[in-house]
Amino acid sequence: MQVPSPSAREAASMYGTAVAVFLVILVAALQGSTPPESPFPYRIPLDPEGTLELSWNVSYAQETVHFQLLVRELTAGVLFGMSDRGELENADLVVLWTNGDSAYFGDAWSDQKGQIHLDAQQDYQLLQAQRTPQGLTLLFRRPFSTCDPRDYLIEDGTVHLVYGILEQPFSSLEAINTSGLRTGLQRVQLLKPNISRPALPADVRTMEVRAPDVLIPGQETTYWCYMTELPAGFPRHHIVMYEPIVTKGNEALVHHMEVFQCAAGFESFPHFSGPCDSKMKPERLNYCRHVLAAWALGAKAFYYPEEAGLAFGGAGSSRFLRLEVHYHNPLKIQGRRDSSGIRLYYTATLRRFDAGIMELGLVYTPVMAIPPGEAAFALTGYCTDKCTQLALPPSGIRIFASQLHTHLTGRKVVTVLARDGRERAIVNRDNHYSPHFQEIRMLKEVVSVHPGDVLITSCTYNTEDRTLATVGGFGILEEMCVNYVHYYPQTQLELCKSAVDAGFLQKYFHLVNRFNSEEVCTCPQTSVPEQFASVPWNSFSRDVLQALYGFAPLAMHCNKSSAVRFQGEWDLQPLPEIVSQLEVPAPRCPASQRLSPDGPTVVNIGGGQG
Amino acid sequence: MQVPSPSAREAASMYGTAVAVFLVILVAALQGSTPPESPFPYRIPLDPEGTLELSWNVSYAQETVHFQLLVRELTAGVLFGMSDRGELENADLVVLWTNGDSAYFGDAWSDQKGQIHLDAQQDYQLLQAQRTPQGLTLLFRRPFSTCDPRDYLIEDGTVHLVYGILEQPFSSLEAINTSGLRTGLQRVQLLKPNISRPALPADVRTMEVRAPDVLIPGQETTYWCYMTELPAGFPRHHIVMYEPIVTKGNEALVHHMEVFQCAAGFESFPHFSGPCDSKMKPERLNYCRHVLAAWALGAKAFYYPEEAGLAFGGAGSSRFLRLEVHYHNPLKIQGRRDSSGIRLYYTATLRRFDAGIMELGLVYTPVMAIPPGEAAFALTGYCTDKCTQLALPPSGIRIFASQLHTHLTGRKVVTVLARDGRERAIVNRDNHYSPHFQEIRMLKEVVSVHPGDVLITSCTYNTEDRTLATVGGFGILEEMCVNYVHYYPQTQLELCKSAVDAGFLQKYFHLVNRFNSEEVCTCPQTSVPEQFASVPWNSFSRDVLQALYGFAPLAMHCNKSSAVRFQGEWDLQPLPEIVSQLEVPAPRCPASQRLSPDGPTVVNIGGGQG
Repeated sequence: MQVPSPSAREAASMYGTAVAVFLVILVAALQGSTPPESPFPYRIPLDPEGTLELSWNVSYAQETVHFQLLVRELTAGVLFGMSDRGELENADLVVLWTNGDSAYFGDAWSDQKGQIHLDAQQDYQLLQAQRTPQGLTLLFRRPFSTCDPRDYLIEDGTVHLVYGILEQPFSSLEAINTSGLRTGLQRVQLLKPNISRPALPADVRTMEVRAPDVLIPGQETTYWCYMTELPAGFPRHHIVMYEPIVTKGNEALVHHMEVFQCAAGFESFPHFSGPCDSKMKPERLNYCRHVLAAWALGAKAFYYPEEAGLAFGGAGSSRFLRLEVHYHNPLKIQGRRDSSGIRLYYTATLRRFDAGIMELGLVYTPVMAIPPGEAAFALTGYCTDKCTQLALPPSGIRIFASQLHTHLTGRKVVTVLARDGRERAIVNRDNHYSPHFQEIRMLKEVVSVHPGDVLITSCTYNTEDRTLATVGGFGILEEMCVNYVHYYPQTQLELCKSAVDAGFLQKYFHLVNRFNSEEVCTCPQTSVPEQFASVPWNSFSRDVLQALYGFAPLAMHCNKSSAVRFQGEWDLQPLPEIVSQLEVPAPRCPASQRLSPDGPTVVNIGGGQG
Repeated sequence: MQVPSPSAREAASMYGTAVAVFLVILVAALQGSTPPESPFPYRIPLDPEGTLELSWNVSYAQETVHFQLLVRELTAGVLFGMSDRGELENADLVVLWTNGDSAYFGDAWSDQKGQIHLDAQQDYQLLQAQRTPQGLTLLFRRPFSTCDPRDYLIEDGTVHLVYGILEQPFSSLEAINTSGLRTGLQRVQLLKPNISRPALPADVRTMEVRAPDVLIPGQETTYWCYMTELPAGFPRHHIVMYEPIVTKGNEALVHHMEVFQCAAGFESFPHFSGPCDSKMKPERLNYCRHVLAAWALGAKAFYYPEEAGLAFGGAGSSRFLRLEVHYHNPLKIQGRRDSSGIRLYYTATLRRFDAGIMELGLVYTPVMAIPPGEAAFALTGYCTDKCTQLALPPSGIRIFASQLHTHLTGRKVVTVLARDGRERAIVNRDNHYSPHFQEIRMLKEVVSVHPGDVLITSCTYNTEDRTLATVGGFGILEEMCVNYVHYYPQTQLELCKSAVDAGFLQKYFHLVNRFNSEEVCTCPQTSVPEQFASVPWNSFSRDVLQALYGFAPLAMHCNKSSAVRFQGEWDLQPLPEIVSQLEVPAPRCPASQRLSPDGPTVVNIGGGQG
C-alpha cells in the first residue's frame, strides 16, 4: 500500500467523489501469486475475435463471483460488465482505463445515454493485474448483490455480459461514452449450479455426434443440419452424460448445438449435411424433433442424476439422429472449417429410471395473446392439481433440469410449484431470458412434484415494436410459453399445459365492443387471430384482457402425447387459487463492501499501454 | 476510543455478527460538548406521559436528521424508530439496552413477529449520551436513506415514529420482542421544509383564538368546539402568520387545532364552548367550515408568502370564528385544564395578493368506489387542462401549502402537476398519510400552475377489513380524495375535481353481469351504492373496475363554488394523457455509513441503569 503520486491524486479528484483511500496494487509481470479460488472452471470468449476471454468461478457460500478477464491485445483499456439485456446503456461496469500517465481500475456504471460514471460504492474488487505471455489478466470479484441501486443483481438464469474496447487514453472516466467504442454482448449462465458430478458407470462408452469438416458460411447466422444414425441393431441404452466438442479456434463461432432423435414411424431418413434452411434439405428431417442433448455457449457437460438415464436405441425408437449447429459469425469470417458436435456418454447397464421430458406452459393457441406496445406483459400456463393427481405416480417425480422456450418477444420465464394453494418452490426462473439462448439447465436443486401439485409457468413478453396483437401459435412471429422439464421416473404425461377458455374470450370481444362502438367482429366465422387484429388497443382493452386471463376458467391439455388426452373433463377448469406467494428474499448486502476502496484503484500494469 | 472490556466483547459476539470495531463513548454527566448542529428547532412528546421527548433538526445538504431523545426516567432502556404505519413489527429501530453489566446502543430492526435483530449495517450513529438533571439525552443521526433494505426511508410527509420502554435488562438484543413492551406511536412530519421566514410587517398585530379554561374530558378523544367573534366593524385584514399556543403541561394532549370562519350568510352565531359532538351544540355551528388556520402536533408557525395574506374581516365575510381543539387523552387523565389555541398574526396593510384555497381531487360521489379487501387500491381525480385554461390568470398561480384529506381508509395521497402530457413536479406527496394527522403543510418549494396545466391527485386506500365496496361520499365510512391547496393570487376557481362518467360505470355493471350470471341490478331505479353492494367481488370485477377508472371519460367539476360551474361542457371529458412520468430518483447511499461501527456501540451512561 502506497500513497499515490500527486498526478494520480489529481486525476482521481476529477470524479468529484470524496476519495478517502487509494490502494496501489503493484504487480510486476509474473510476480502475482495464485489466487486461492483458482482454477476457473468456466470460460467463454466475449468478442467474436476472442480478444477478450472471461473465466469465472462461483462461491455460493460467499455469494461471490470471481472473474478472470484475459485481454489478449491491450490497447488503452477495456470495460466489462452486465446489463439487463446486453445494452451498453444502464450497464454495471468495471473499467480499466488510462489517462496517459496512470492506469485505473474502477467500478462504474453507464447512464441511459451510455456515459460512464464512477460508482459511489466500489463493489468490483480488483485482486490482481498480471502480464502474461497471453496478455493482461485482471482478477476481480463481485458479490451477487451489492445493495447499490446502480449495480446489477447477479441472479440465476441468463446474464448478459457486455464489453468494450478503449482505443485511446481518456482524461477521465466521465469522458468515456460507450456509444463511441467497439462493444458487444455475450449471454451466459453465470451462476452455474454447484452440483456434485454423479459417478459414471464402469461400462460407459462414448459416441461423437458431429458434422465432419463443415465450411462455416461467411454470414452472421447459420443453422447447420447434419443427419447421422445409430448402428443397425443398436440396443436400448441410457445416456448418462454429454459434453460439447468444439473445434479449436472456433470457440467464438459455435453458439449452440442440439442432437434430435427422429420419429419412430419412418423406416429411414436421408443423409444430409447443409444449412437447415437450404432448399436441398429433405422435408422428412422436420420429423427429427425429439431432443436428446442440447448445449449452448458457456455450458459444460450435462449429467443425468445417478439413478436415471435418457433411453435411446432399441425397438420402438428411431435409429436416426439430427445434429443442429448454430454458427454465430457476425464478422462474416470466410473459409473457416468446423467439426464441432456433442459427445454422448452412454451405458448398456440401464439405470433404475428412465428420464423423461414434460412440456409445461401454454397450449399453442391464438386465444392466448399479447397486446401490442407492451413493455412487459405476462401470460401464464397451468399444470393443474387434477392433472398431476391423475398422471403422476404416488411417489411423485423429480425434476432435475429445465429448458425454457419462447419465440422472439419472450423476456422472462418462470415456473413455480404450488401445493395446497401455496407457492413452494421455484422450478426454474430466468429474469433475463433470451430466445437466442435456450440452454438445457441442470437445476441447483432437484424439485419433487407430487400428485395434486400445481405447476405455474409464466412468460413475460415485450411487444413494444409491434402494432398488432401477438397471438399464441407455432409461427416465429407468434408466441409460445414453454418449460421443457427433464425429470424421472418417466411417466405417460408428456404435456401439461393450459389456455383460457375460448367461450370466455368471446365474452371479452363482446365486452370490448360495448366499450368501443362495435369494432370487433364476434360473428362465428371469424378466426380468433382476426378478432384480436380488430381489437382497438387502449388501456381498457389491454387491462381487461389481462384481467380475463387472471380470472377466466381454463382449457387444460393433460396429455399422453400431443394428441392423446388423459381421460376426464378438461374444459372450463377453475384457475388454481394461490393464497400465498413465495417471499422474495431481501438481497444480502455483503459486509465485505466496507473493505473496498471508495474510489478507483491505481493499477500498475507493467510496460506501457500501447 | 478504547478497546472494550472482554465482557462487552462477549456480549456483542452473541449477535452473531462479525463485529470489527467497537467504539466506546465515555461521556460523563455534564462533560459533553455542545454538538455543532444544535439547537433542535422541532420537538414532540412521544408518549402520552411525556416521558420520552424527541427533538430534531434536518440537514437537507447532508440529507441527514439529527435526533435528540430525552428519556426523563430511564428504566433499563428504550427503543425508538420508524415504521410504515406505526406498527412495532417490521420497524427500523435504535435500541438502548443493558445486559446488566454494560449498556449498548445499536441500529436494529424488528421482524414481522416483533422480534428485534441487530442491523448488519449500523446507520443510526450515536454522537453523544449525556446525563442531565432532566434525564438521559441521546444524540444520534440518521441519513434520510441508507440503501439498507431493512431500513426505513425518511421521506416527505408523515412519519410514524414508534417507541418502547425496556423495563429490565436483556441478555441480548435478540431476546427482546416488542410485543412484551410498553410501546406507542407518534405521527409527525419529520422533514420540515427549510423555508426562510418571511419578514413580518411593522404593523403586525396578534389575536389569540383560544377556548379559555377547558376541563379536558377524561376520555381518549374529544373534539372541543369554541365560538368566538371578531370585534364589530373589524375591517378587512390579512393574516400573515399563525402559531400554536399550547398550555404548558398539556403538550402531549393537544393533538391538533383548527380555526374556521363561519358562513357569511348568517347575521350571528350562538356562543358555545363544549364537545363538538354534544347534543347541546347549536346546529348552526355546522356552517363554520372555512379554514383560517390549522395546526397539528409537531408543527411550528405557519407563514404566508411575503406577497400574500389570507383575508379576514370586512364586508362580505362573517365575524364569527369556530375553534376546534382535538384532545388525545389515551390515559384518560382527569381534571386537566387547558386554554390552548392559535395566535393569528395579521396586518391592516393588505399585501399585494389575497391567498386562496382550492379543492383538488375527486368529486364526492359514489361512482368512485374501492372494492373490499384491497391492500392498496388507488383512485385518481383530475383538474384538467381545460379547466385551468379557463379559470387561471395568464400568469398562473403559486401553490405554497397543501392539506391532504381522506376518510378512514386513506393510506397515501399525492398530487402531481403535468404540462403537455408530461409530469413536471410533485405538488405534495405523503406515502404514509394518515387520516388521523391532517396538517396544512408549507411546501418545500412553491409550485407554479399555469393555464393549461393538469393537476392529478391520487389516493391509495386500504379496505382489507371491509366486506362491501367503499363508495365516495360525505359519510365517515365513505371515502374522499382531496388536496386543499393554498395558493395566490386568489381566483374564482374553488373546486377542480373529477369523477368517472356515470354512463361508463353503468356499462361496467352490465359487463360484470355478463361474466357473473346477472347479479348486479342495472335497472334505473337502483342507486349506485346499491349496485356496488351487489357486485360479486373477484379479481375480474376488481381489475375491470380499475381498468375502467384508468380509461373512461370524466365528469369534471370546474367550479366557482361547490354549486356554480364555470361555463362550458364538462361531461364526457377525455382522461388527461400522460406520456412521461416523473422519474423516481435512486436513493443516495451516503458514504458516511462506512464510518459507522459494524456492531453496537458500548455506551457509558453514568450512574446505574435503575
